[in-house]
Amino acid sequence: MEEREISGKIKVMFYTGNKNKFREVREILWEYGVGIEMRTGKPAEVQSEDITYIVKTCVEVLRKRNRGPGFVEDTGLFIESLNGFPGPYASYVYEKIGLEGVLKLLRGVKNRRAMFRTIIGYWDNKTKLKIFKGEIKGLISKKVRGKGWGYDPVFIPLGFDKTYGEMKLAEKNMVSHRSKAVRLFAEWLVKKKQGN
Amino acid sequence: MEEREISGKIKVMFYTGNKNKFREVREILWEYGVGIEMRTGKPAEVQSEDITYIVKTCVEVLRKRNRGPGFVEDTGLFIESLNGFPGPYASYVYEKIGLEGVLKLLRGVKNRRAMFRTIIGYWDNKTKLKIFKGEIKGLISKKVRGKGWGYDPVFIPLGFDKTYGEMKLAEKNMVSHRSKAVRLFAEWLVKKKQGN
Repeated sequence: MEEREISGKIKVMFYTGNKNKFREVREILWEYGVGIEMRTGKPAEVQSEDITYIVKTCVEVLRKRNRGPGFVEDTGLFIESLNGFPGPYASYVYEKIGLEGVLKLLRGVKNRRAMFRTIIGYWDNKTKLKIFKGEIKGLISKKVRGKGWGYDPVFIPLGFDKTYGEMKLAEKNMVSHRSKAVRLFAEWLVKKKQGN
Repeated sequence: MEEREISGKIKVMFYTGNKNKFREVREILWEYGVGIEMRTGKPAEVQSEDITYIVKTCVEVLRKRNRGPGFVEDTGLFIESLNGFPGPYASYVYEKIGLEGVLKLLRGVKNRRAMFRTIIGYWDNKTKLKIFKGEIKGLISKKVRGKGWGYDPVFIPLGFDKTYGEMKLAEKNMVSHRSKAVRLFAEWLVKKKQGN
């Protein structure tokens, strides 16, 4: 179910336990003729506020086990008035206190500014580590709006008046932090392939 | 300043970046004739809800670098109505949203039950890893009460009507989660020494 027939010329392993993330990334890479396979066994991430560092240490462990090509992705949500909370622990915090908890923390708070940052780390038998970054600024809504997964229903990207959760996936994938990182990654992969 | 003259017969390295924690542990071990030295270079902890696992992986890294005797300590705060939040990320959460943030999350919440868990991991040239555990149940107060560090001013241990922050250090050290783990550790060290 998770594995589409891969007709693209490039095939990469995506180490993640998150099916929503996998689907989202697959949709984007598909446009570039890049196929991905979901792989489990992503090592435990280190505790750090630096997403790039988290991704680097993950790739270091994985490329000793597997020659690739493979990649990992990590995303953090940094809310300005909460000093960057939940940062790299966005998924842990989501799981524990939910969107309602985050909205409660922001109750009565005027500054709703936030930023999403995605880092992708890629390796293969020739490339030790290649990092791709995607960021987007936005606002945390006052209530849950729309569907989607994770923080989608409370994040309004700058320049829009709707949350990710109120967008169609294709629309989110045009603008999102994750799509920015994934598109840079895809363009690099395609160029690399052409260079071979 | 952090280093008392060590007259005890046993001397162990404590890998921590937290001076408050160091002082607290030093006071308790002192009673047992165990002296400690503060050492930096504690490796980045892994992201896990299992404090024992975090400590184990830390010791694994450290004992490759240093033959010991040394130890690390990790503590989590698990708030029942928040599904165990902030758990192992207690210090990160404290730094970001503070006690006020945690109290805000619990505003209007009747169930104030919480648990502190401390795990100590020790190694030396003969002992690969020895784990000591200390736990205490209690309640989260409705407001900040007293002094102390970390969550001291909001945690009321079961059977008491004051927070850790309203206790003297000696009193906290008689009952606390951390002191339980430290005392088990000290008793084991002393017995081990006598056995030599």
